[in-house]
This record gives sequence, C-alpha cells and structure tokens, in this order.
Amino acid sequence: MGSLENEPPSAADHGFKGSTRPETFLLVLNAPQPPSLWQELSGSVRGAIFPRGNQPSSLTKWAISVLHGLFPVLHWGRNYNLKSFRSDLMAGLTLASLGIPQSIGYANLAKLDPQYGLYTSFVPPLIYAVMGTSRDIAIGPVAVISLLLSSMAQKVVDPSVDPTAYRKLVITSTFFAGVFQASFGFFRLGFIVDFLSHATIVGFMGGAAIVIGLQQLKGLLGISHFTNNTDVVSVVKAVWVAVHHSWHPDNFLIGCSFLIFILIVRFIGMRKRKLFWLSAITPLLSVIISTLLVFLTRADKHGVKIIQKVKEGLNPSSVKDIQLTGSHVAESAKIGLICAIIALTEAIAVGRSFAAVKGYQLDGNKEMVAMGVMNLAGSMSSCYVATGSFSRTAVNVSAGCKTTVSNIVMAITVFISLQLLMKLLYYTPVTILASIILSALPGLIDIKEAYNIWKIDKMDFLACFGAFLGVLFGSVEIGLLTAVLISFAKIIISALRPSVEMLGRIQGTDTFCSMRQYPSAAETPNLMILRIDSPFLCFMNANFIRERIVNWVTEGRNAMKEETKSVIIDMTNVINIDTSGISALEEIYKKLASASVQLAVVNPGWQVIHKMKLARLVEMIGGAWIFLTVGEAVEACLGGAKKEDNCNV
Amino acid sequence: MGSLENEPPSAADHGFKGSTRPETFLLVLNAPQPPSLWQELSGSVRGAIFPRGNQPSSLTKWAISVLHGLFPVLHWGRNYNLKSFRSDLMAGLTLASLGIPQSIGYANLAKLDPQYGLYTSFVPPLIYAVMGTSRDIAIGPVAVISLLLSSMAQKVVDPSVDPTAYRKLVITSTFFAGVFQASFGFFRLGFIVDFLSHATIVGFMGGAAIVIGLQQLKGLLGISHFTNNTDVVSVVKAVWVAVHHSWHPDNFLIGCSFLIFILIVRFIGMRKRKLFWLSAITPLLSVIISTLLVFLTRADKHGVKIIQKVKEGLNPSSVKDIQLTGSHVAESAKIGLICAIIALTEAIAVGRSFAAVKGYQLDGNKEMVAMGVMNLAGSMSSCYVATGSFSRTAVNVSAGCKTTVSNIVMAITVFISLQLLMKLLYYTPVTILASIILSALPGLIDIKEAYNIWKIDKMDFLACFGAFLGVLFGSVEIGLLTAVLISFAKIIISALRPSVEMLGRIQGTDTFCSMRQYPSAAETPNLMILRIDSPFLCFMNANFIRERIVNWVTEGRNAMKEETKSVIIDMTNVINIDTSGISALEEIYKKLASASVQLAVVNPGWQVIHKMKLARLVEMIGGAWIFLTVGEAVEACLGGAKKEDNCNV
Repeated sequence: MGSLENEPPSAADHGFKGSTRPETFLLVLNAPQPPSLWQELSGSVRGAIFPRGNQPSSLTKWAISVLHGLFPVLHWGRNYNLKSFRSDLMAGLTLASLGIPQSIGYANLAKLDPQYGLYTSFVPPLIYAVMGTSRDIAIGPVAVISLLLSSMAQKVVDPSVDPTAYRKLVITSTFFAGVFQASFGFFRLGFIVDFLSHATIVGFMGGAAIVIGLQQLKGLLGISHFTNNTDVVSVVKAVWVAVHHSWHPDNFLIGCSFLIFILIVRFIGMRKRKLFWLSAITPLLSVIISTLLVFLTRADKHGVKIIQKVKEGLNPSSVKDIQLTGSHVAESAKIGLICAIIALTEAIAVGRSFAAVKGYQLDGNKEMVAMGVMNLAGSMSSCYVATGSFSRTAVNVSAGCKTTVSNIVMAITVFISLQLLMKLLYYTPVTILASIILSALPGLIDIKEAYNIWKIDKMDFLACFGAFLGVLFGSVEIGLLTAVLISFAKIIISALRPSVEMLGRIQGTDTFCSMRQYPSAAETPNLMILRIDSPFLCFMNANFIRERIVNWVTEGRNAMKEETKSVIIDMTNVINIDTSGISALEEIYKKLASASVQLAVVNPGWQVIHKMKLARLVEMIGGAWIFLTVGEAVEACLGGAKKEDNCNV
Repeated sequence: MGSLENEPPSAADHGFKGSTRPETFLLVLNAPQPPSLWQELSGSVRGAIFPRGNQPSSLTKWAISVLHGLFPVLHWGRNYNLKSFRSDLMAGLTLASLGIPQSIGYANLAKLDPQYGLYTSFVPPLIYAVMGTSRDIAIGPVAVISLLLSSMAQKVVDPSVDPTAYRKLVITSTFFAGVFQASFGFFRLGFIVDFLSHATIVGFMGGAAIVIGLQQLKGLLGISHFTNNTDVVSVVKAVWVAVHHSWHPDNFLIGCSFLIFILIVRFIGMRKRKLFWLSAITPLLSVIISTLLVFLTRADKHGVKIIQKVKEGLNPSSVKDIQLTGSHVAESAKIGLICAIIALTEAIAVGRSFAAVKGYQLDGNKEMVAMGVMNLAGSMSSCYVATGSFSRTAVNVSAGCKTTVSNIVMAITVFISLQLLMKLLYYTPVTILASIILSALPGLIDIKEAYNIWKIDKMDFLACFGAFLGVLFGSVEIGLLTAVLISFAKIIISALRPSVEMLGRIQGTDTFCSMRQYPSAAETPNLMILRIDSPFLCFMNANFIRERIVNWVTEGRNAMKEETKSVIIDMTNVINIDTSGISALEEIYKKLASASVQLAVVNPGWQVIHKMKLARLVEMIGGAWIFLTVGEAVEACLGGAKKEDNCNV
C-alpha cells in the first residue's frame, strides 16, 4: 500500500497517455484496511455479551442489566396498573375458555392422556410470562407440535403397547427441546429459525393441517384401530377399511353437529367483530353441552366413546421420567431438536407478526431463551413441548390483552379446573375433541397467501409446494427436509450462477445501467462495460464468471467486427473475494492483455480491493486503471478526460 | 404496470411538494418484464443442446456439429502435420519413461497387481486423445486416486484376503466413476467440480501426499504386515511396531539411495531447464539399475523384496468383473462417485492451468464426457480410475507436446512394454516403487500456495487447513467432507449476515460510497443513506436486514439528537428478492412511516422492481420515491431539485 502511495503507477505504461486521471481514483487505492476476520469475530462475541455496545461500568450494573434482559417483567412490571390488569383478566379468561378444550384435544393428538394437555397449559405460560418479550403470544400445546411429536415418537415406542415408556420418551424429548432452544438463544443462533422461510412455513402448515384433519377422522368416526402413519395414503386407506367394518354413526353425528355449530359461530364472530368472544367460548360451550347430552341420554352405552377418568390435581413431577441414558437418548435428542426448531419458528412467526402490528420489537434470542427455559421447566412437571399458538394468540389480541399477565390468568384458570373440574369431563365424548381440533385447522391453511407467493415468486412457491406435498405424502420430517433443501438450493444456485450484466449509458447522464433492465441505455463504441452481480467472487462462481467475460469479449469482437479496445468491469456489487476469485481476475487480465484489450476495474468492495493489493493484482492491472465510478473509467478509456492529473494528491 | 404508466404516482401525496422529479425515475418503474423462471429454464436447456446459440439448419449439420463437439480430434486432426508429430513423439516417449514406473508404483498403492497400472496407462489415454479438449494433459493412474480407491475399497473387501473380489470391486467402482463423470458432462453439471475450491484442493493434496508418503514406508522398510487405515496416527503406530520387530535394512538402503538419486537429478533438472528430460527418465533408469543390481547380487535371497511375476500381454476384458447386482453395488457407486469428483477436479484443475498458460479455452462439460467415456472403456478393459496427472502433464508440456498425440505415443510405448518387457521386471525391488512414488510427492505439497492463501484470505485458509487435517488425522473422506462443509458454510454465512453500509457523499461529486471504506465520504444532514450488500434479500437475511435498518434509524435518532427525516435505501446490489424480503421492505416502510420518516428506494434490481410492483409495494412506497441514482434521491429528499417536472415523459 505504501509503495502505491509513493509511486503512483505510471499511467503511460498502460497505454494511458496524455489524458488525465480523475481525482477520486486514489480514494479506492488508499481505503483503510478492512476489519480482519479476528476483529469481526471478537466484535460479534463482544456484541453477544454486551448487546447494546456500551460496556456497563460496574459488575452490579452488569448483573442488573443481565437480569433485566432475562426477565422483561422487571421492566414493564413497574408500570403495570389496574387498567391493564382489567384488560388482561378478560383476555386471560377468554383464552382459558378456548385453551382448556383445545389442550385436551391436542393431548389426544399427541397420544397422551387428557390431563397432559392441561399440564402444558399451566407451567409453561407462567414461565413465559416473566421471561418472554412478546406481549401478545398465548403459550400452550399446539396442533402441529402435537402431531410432530406423536408421529416421530410412536415410531420409537408404540403408545398403545407401552404408554409409560412412550410418555417418558415424550418428556425426554421435551427436555431436549428446551435445552436446544435455550442454547440457540444463549449462543445467539437465532438465524436457525430463518432457515425456514415464510413460504415453506405456509406450505408445511397447510400440509400438517390436512394431515391433522385426517387423523381426526378416527375420533369423529369412533374408530378403534387406526394407522400410525401420518401420510394421506395410509390414513385414507385406514379410514376406508374402518368405514367398511366398524364405526359408530352416533359419534359422527355428535362430532359433525358441534363442528358445524362452532364454525357457524366463528363465521358470525368474523362478521361482527364485537361478538368475537362468542367464537372463543363456543368450544368450551360445546364440551359442556355435549357432556350433558351424553350424561343425560347415557349415549356411552350405545357406542359413543367418552373420555372417562381424567386424573385430578396439579402437575406431578416428571424429573424421573427424563432419561439421559438408555437406548432412546439419540432418538429423543433428534425429536427434541426438530420440535425445538419448529416450535421456535411458529412462536417467533406469531410473535413477530403481532409485534409488527402493535409496533414493538421482538428480541429473537431472548425469545429463544424464554422458550427453552419454559420447556425445560415443563419437562420436569409432566408437560410436553409448548409454544405460541396461532389461533389462541389471535383470540388473546382480539380480547384486548396488554401484557403476558393474560397468560398468567389463563394458567390460574387451568390450575383451578385441574383441581376441581376434572370429574366433570367423565362423560365428555371423544368426538367433540376431534370437532374442536378440526375447527381450528382452517386457520392453518392459508390458500390466499399461497396464491400470493405464487404470484410474486415462483421459486418460493416451489419451496412452499414441496413442503406441502412432502408432509402430505411423505411424513412431517420429509416435508421439512424438502422445504429446507429447496430453500438452500436457491441460495447455492444463485451463488453458483450469478448474472453478469452489460451496462450502457442512460442518455444524457453519467449513469450506467444494465442494458437488459433499461433498454434505453446505450452502448459506448469500442468499450464493453460489465457488472458482476455477485457479492462473493469465489470458488463457486469464479470460473463461470471468468469464462463468461472472456467469451463475451472474444465473441463480441467477432460479431460486431468493431474492435473492443477496453473492458470495464464494474465490481460495485462484489463485496468479498477469495483466492479463486483473485486468480480468475488475474486470468481475465492476462487473457485481455494478450488480445491487447485494456482492463479497467471499477469500485471493488472494501475486502476486494484489500485482497487485490495483497495478491499484487493491483500492481498487475495498474493502479491507474482502478476507478471509483464507471463514468470516470469510461472517460479514461476513451482518453477524453480534460481534467488535470491529480496523481500526487 | 400499465396503471403506473397512465397515472404517474402523485408526488404531492407523499410530501414531495413543489420540487421536481428527476427525469430518470420512470426508467426504473417502466423496465420491461424480466425473464420468467420458465424462460430462463428453457433457455438454459436450449443452450445445453445447441451450445453456440445458433440453431443448425439441418439434421445432418446438427449431427456433424455434435460429432465435432464429441471428438475434437476431427477439428484439429485436419491441420496436424509432421512437425507437430515430431514434437509429440518426443513428448510421448519422455512421458512413457516417467509413466511406466509410476504406473506400476500407483498400482501398488491401489493394492492391485503391477500390470493394472500399465493397463490404465494404455486404454484411457487413447480414448482421451480423440475426445479431450486439453492439448497438454497426460492421462493415466495418479497417486491421490489410487490412495482414495484403496482406502475406501479395502474397507469393503480386504485385498489380502480376497484379491479377486477386491479387483472386481475396484473395476465396478471405475465403471460407476465413468458413468457419473459422463452424466455430469452430459447434463452440464460442470459446477460440481467448482464445489471444491482451489484452497481446499491445496489442503487436500498436501494431506494426501503426506498420507501416501507414510504408506510408502511399508515398501521402503520392507514391512509385511501393515495397517489398512490411512490416518497418520495408525500408520505411525504400525511403522513403530514393525521397526521394532521385522524390517529389512537392505530394502531401506536401496530405496533411500535411489530416492536421493532421483531427487538430486530433479534438482539439477529444475536448475537447468534443458536437462529436464534427465529428471523425467531417472525413475525408469532407477528401475533398470536397481533391477540389474538385485539380479546380479541375488539380493532377493537376503530379504530384499522383489516384484516377481508380472502378467504379460494386453489388457484382458473385464466386462464380467463389473458387478451391478449383489451386496456391494451401493458401496461401489459411492466409491465411484467420490473418485469421479476428485478425478474430475484434479484433471480440470491441471487442464485449466496449462490451457491458461498456452491461451486456449477448456470446455468443462466436454472434458467430463471425455473422462467419463474413458473410464467406462477402462472399466471394461481391466483399468482402474484414470485422470490427468499433475506431474506427468508438467513433463509433457516441458517436453514440448503439441496435441494429445503425445498420449497416443505413450500408450503405444506402454503397449509394447506390456507385450515384451514384463519378464524383465521380475527382479525389480519393491522398494524402488516406493522411492518413485515418494519422489513425486513434493509436487503435491504446495506450502508456498498455502502461505499465499493465508496471506490473502483467512477463511479460505481455514478450508485448506481443515481439508489437510481431515485427511491427515481422519480419513480421505473426512478431509473432503470438512473442506466442502467449510466452503459451503462461508457462502451460507455470507448470505445470512450481509452487511448494510451507511453511505456518504464523496466531496465535490455526486458519488455516494460506504463511509467505512471511504472515510472522506461525508454524511448528509437529516438523511440516512443505507446500502444493502446482498444480492438476494430473502428469508435468510430479511429479518436481519430489517432489524438492522430499523435499529439504526431509531438509534440514530436518539444518538444524534438531530432528526433523520428521510431514509434512502440503495438497492443497487439487490438482484433478487423473495416473499420474505418483500414483507421485510413492507415492514421497514410501515415502521418508518409511523415515525414520519420518508423512505426512498434507489435502483432495485430487475427482478426486485418487478416483484415490488406485483406485491403492490411500489404503490405503498409511492412510485415517486423510487429513484435511479442515490444523487437523485438525495436531491428529492432535501427538496432542493431545481429541474422541471418530467413525469409525463
């Protein structure tokens, strides 16, 4: 660098005679050294420990800031008032009336006893209330996680054969999910959630909703023996077989009637926003009415399946159920990891969308720590994986919640019903749980959004559709894998085959733009201006870019008959380069030089110019042929600049 | 789009009062529709069938152009003359004198009988000569592939227990390697080779050379029982044990003497370029002298191991050895795939570097087809995987080869020696093969290049060092996997966490540059100009970019006390966007609007502006707030433009 400052490269050596140098070229060559890899790494580590950048003055202050970071309740709790509480109380009670029947239904979907759903609606919301950064999210068991958990866990242990071992497996998986979530947050690996794009989630949720719906046919039809597979083909086959052998029309009648009832009330609620609470309490209402109905008519003696005994009392400890040794540890960890990621994705998507509406910021890493701790605590108190629910969060917001206190209110309501009301569930028909789950599914299938994705981005739709088909015809895991692979492939392909654009001048200006995008941009005679549209000129695309540029120059010469005397490569978009990129540039230079074509480089990124200097490529090309703007390069190449030589600034 | 043309967005609606619109803004909004996914796909398929773009007029012409494409010999053969042949003859003979002893040595490394190395130096070069596009490459068995093949194949079948089954496995793997290579070329999957960066190849080759060198200690010390593992720890342990029990100093003495002899002659050859042929024939000379020595002193009776019988005659057919059913098919395919990729990587790297020196172009896809056909033919004639050799190609070039005819000359020489001279190899000591292999290794360890990589790019060096350590302490496969993972991680991380730069004006110009890279660039009061340095605003980085921009704007407001009235986002670098990116932009706009900050967007890429229009984001932001250059946006935001309104172009 020093040598470049002292001896500006001789312009005359490169056929750059007589004309002047634009005054800005030294800026490019004399840019300060970019931060090294170590500086960037240490910066991001420091950022992780002191997120705000300003290091606290004393240990106490640091501890307080960490505590405030971990427990946002310390921050908002001080300004909490009666008015907010009134709102939260109403929201919490509405939430509970929807949450209690849903929890029982989801426990059924997860192939656990009903009380486990309620347990999961008690401990996790309490923990989240003091640790979470979202004010709106409603915590508890959700449909997709329940399906995911049961579809993976029952491949390891069959719940109908050994329910205790199955429960232990689920509890252990929950423990692992908590560990993974907390460590993602702690190590600031929030980007893991970003791997699942919005489009894949739309596809995945749609597929999962249909799978869950089909699973409910078991309850709705009162079928005893059902397939353990979740794909459409197996389920339809199982239903087909069952319908031809043994099913109980009464179950179907009760289930369908209440499903229609719930859907009609929801439709009314959607039309008249003031009546939304009606749709929130209909599930509970349906449970009460159907239970009464069965009790009065003793329909259980005529084939209507009932829940029967539900264990009363608070969450028992399940610390002993967490099995960190034995044959299923690896499987539990795998199930835990997948559930952890899906649960986080769902919760953060829900949290973000409502935070955006209300205009506050969600801290992804803190959310992960909160979710992790809540599931860890859950795994020790007989809960399975909890997360933020789409449908209940919407109800919570509609009911006017102000803070996470509404979750506390809901948890307390669940606690009371666990203590007192479990006996009343004896005669509740199983089919009503299926109706409640089915009624929640339309919210998961977002055809409008899928159409929107199709309209805007076909590749995105491919990922969406891949996830949908994968879940539907393969399994939940295959669907996820398909989606992630398609999404990654998009990134890799775009890195592999970046476009190289020919630039032309916008008439009457000094602006040079892609001639494909702006057909009015005009070529400059004897000059080829190319822009590399890749942020990283690296091993993956260096050969491709080199070949394309060299081919264009040779073909351009042959086709146009008119000689290309200079090639200007606009590297504004190239942020970084590696050794393969450097040697590609070197080869382009040599190739052009052997055809006596002048090469000019415009505005390479910070890292790029630094590495070009290190690799002595600047010396090879000639410092005089590196410019800040395309306009200056064109002027220099045409030799028409009229300014004075400012080399010795 | 139509509506935008007819009714230019009202500037007044967006607080853009009185001042004028720069004349270029309509160019951005009225850009033609970018090619759709289908158009791009069909274009690339057409490009694959008619590579030159111009569709041939008749079927005959098309067939001729395909034939010319497949057999470049048809092209250059017509201009071939006696002068070229004289050069090629000399080069071919030099090549053979180096190739014959090396082939025998590499067969030993691949744990096959010596004649298999010679077979591999006969058929593949002949096929390549008529199909290959490189004029310099020397085809035959190479050290790294021999090691790779034996290290993977002996895990499936132990060659010392069942040599026939082992040979069949190797032949089948060669068949698969050929199939994979040919199909990569046919389906234009040349980019597969680009996945292994230059840096990883340097590291991988260095590690492999050390591993191969350690393996040669077996021959050099005359050890009978040796480990099948390739990692340093196992090999050193095995040597340690052997040295303390049974080894024959005579072997070591002969091997070392000739190794020193070969190295000294090579050193002389490197000093005096004219004597390079001396270093090329030393290996053959060493074989002859050592064989004579052993024959005369009958040293084989005193512990010196000799090759003994080598089967005479031409390559036997091995069609029946290709096993496409049975238990080892999957393993053969896996071994074939890995060998195919490494062989292609090595050959194309060698071919490209010499093509660059001589100034001609190598067609990666045609090379792959040629390599594939050559290995397919090889697998049917008792050859194992052949590829382009680093060391022999260098000798070929130094000896003045003009075309692939030098390969034909070499193949004929190998043919003659296979027919006549195999008996003479009876008394050749095994240790001399170790010396020949060892003498070729220094060329594979490129410390200078590794230092160069370290100097230029630390992340690249990490990939290089990862590959090196992986091969050395794990296995060949682990080394490759490490390297590929590190390389991919680089791409993914750079896509995940792109930088967002604050731009400032270069004094006295209308150019806006990163203030970090150009410290002399100055901020504009009341204005924040940001540039997104990512080509793809997508699910992976949309949240990150959104949070960063929103944080900067809010923090900037707090810190500077001075109000930011407008934010200009320079999207020159953003080539593509997906639905997540669109919604991130939408949220940024909403967030800024709620703080009454004006958002202006500059020069979004072709696909980006198209999708922004589809998603009605242009309407939301206001067409009047989308600009072609940062300068125009700044002018508009400051309300200081003095030009006339040119909306109705």
